[in-house]
Amino acid sequence: MNLLLFEPEDFLPDGTAVVSGRRFRQLREVIKAEPGKLCKAGVLGGRIGRAELLSIDPERAFFRFEEDREPPPPLEVTLLCALPRPPTFAKVIHSAVTCGVKKIHFFHSAKVEKSYWQSSRLAPEAIRAEVILALEQCADTVMPELCFHRRFRAFVEDEVPALIPNGAIRIFGAPGAREKVPVGAALRSHVVLAVGPEGGFNEFEENLLENSGFRGVTLGRRILRSEFAVNSILTLLGGC
Amino acid sequence: MNLLLFEPEDFLPDGTAVVSGRRFRQLREVIKAEPGKLCKAGVLGGRIGRAELLSIDPERAFFRFEEDREPPPPLEVTLLCALPRPPTFAKVIHSAVTCGVKKIHFFHSAKVEKSYWQSSRLAPEAIRAEVILALEQCADTVMPELCFHRRFRAFVEDEVPALIPNGAIRIFGAPGAREKVPVGAALRSHVVLAVGPEGGFNEFEENLLENSGFRGVTLGRRILRSEFAVNSILTLLGGC
Repeated sequence: MNLLLFEPEDFLPDGTAVVSGRRFRQLREVIKAEPGKLCKAGVLGGRIGRAELLSIDPERAFFRFEEDREPPPPLEVTLLCALPRPPTFAKVIHSAVTCGVKKIHFFHSAKVEKSYWQSSRLAPEAIRAEVILALEQCADTVMPELCFHRRFRAFVEDEVPALIPNGAIRIFGAPGAREKVPVGAALRSHVVLAVGPEGGFNEFEENLLENSGFRGVTLGRRILRSEFAVNSILTLLGGC
Repeated sequence: MNLLLFEPEDFLPDGTAVVSGRRFRQLREVIKAEPGKLCKAGVLGGRIGRAELLSIDPERAFFRFEEDREPPPPLEVTLLCALPRPPTFAKVIHSAVTCGVKKIHFFHSAKVEKSYWQSSRLAPEAIRAEVILALEQCADTVMPELCFHRRFRAFVEDEVPALIPNGAIRIFGAPGAREKVPVGAALRSHVVLAVGPEGGFNEFEENLLENSGFRGVTLGRRILRSEFAVNSILTLLGGC
C-alpha cells in the first residue's frame, strides 16, 4: 500500500477520514501505524496529499487529510485484451492499472475458452477490489473503465472505431511480427493496443485487425506470461 | 510451456527422449498431445529445435528431437537484487529469467527482514524448479547463475567490482531519481542493475552504491510491485 486510498464516504462531516476493514488491518498489522504517523494518501477519483493518523480504536483509524496535488497522469493507451484465464485476468488488470491505463476492453476470441466468461473474478465487486489494490500500489486515485465484449468481429468492426481517438496509433501483439514495439509512442499520440489470448490471435483475427488499421508488433523471441507482456509493452509505449 | 525442455538424462542411448512427471502430465492433460504432435523443444544448456511425439504410455512420452538453432541470446544485464519476501522471490526470478538475465545476485540490506533468509523457497531444488518453469515460458535453455550475499557492504565494496565487466553501466532503482532508465543500454554495453528492497535502499546504502559508481534511475511516479519493476527496467534496458 503505497497510497492510503480514501473513498468519499470515509469522510465525516468535519472532514475526518475514518478507515476500517482491510485498510485498517493493514495499517495496524503490517505498517504498525501509531498516532502522528504521516501517510501518502488520496481520495478515490480525486487528489493526492498527506494523511496524519489522529487516533485509533480497536476497529477504526481516524485521519486528517490534506490534498496537495493531482494524481499521476494517465497512460495514453487504450488496452484491448482477449479475456485471459481467470487467475491471469486479475494479474493483467493489476499490470495495466499500475502502468496507468484508464480504458480496458476485454473481448472474446477463438482461443479464449468459453468457461472463462463464467468466472467469479469477473463480478464487478471482484474487479473493483483488484483495481483498488492496483491503485494503492501505484499511488493513483483514478479508476479505469472496463468493458467486456463477447463477439470479436462485431467488437473490432463496429465498436473499436468509435473507441479510437483521431490519429491514434493502432498496434497488436504478434510474436512473429518484424516491427518492434514503438518506444515512447504513448508520449506522442494515443495508442490502442490489442493483446491476444495465450495461444495468440488466429489468422482470421489478425486479418480483421490489420483491415482495421492495426499493425503487428513484437517483444522479440522470448515469450512472456500475459501480465508481463502487457507490462513490457506498456512500459515501452512510454508509461512507467 | 512454450518450450519442451529436455534434460540431458532424458535421452536413451538411441537418442529418444523420454519425458515423465510434471512435463508428462502437462503434455497429456493440458496440451492433450498425441503421437505425431510436433513441439518446440530444447535441451537444458543446449540448442533448440523440434520434438516429435513418437508414442505415449501411462506414465511417459517418447520423443524424437532435432535441434536446429541456438537459444535466444542472453540479456546483457547482471541483476543485483535485495532479497524479496518469499512469495515475491519466486516472481522476481521468473521475471528476470524470462527477460534473459543470466547472472542474479541476491543480497541482504537494511529493509530486508532476516526471516526471509530462512525461507524454503531459497532451497536449491525450489529455485531450480522456478528457473525451469521460467525457461519453458520464454523458450530458452540456458540456466542463470544465482548467488546470495548476506552482508551488503562487503558485497558492494569487495565483491561487486569483481563482477563488473570493463565499461559496464552501473545503475540502481531509485524512485526519487531524476534520470530515467536508459533505453536500450544493454544493447550497447553490459549493465549492472541493483534493485532495492520493498521500502527502498536507505541513505547509507545509496551512498555506498554511488561511491561504487552506480547512479540512481527511476521508472517515474508510479510504484510497481518488485517483479513488475524488474520486468519494466529489464525491458527498457533492451531485453524483451
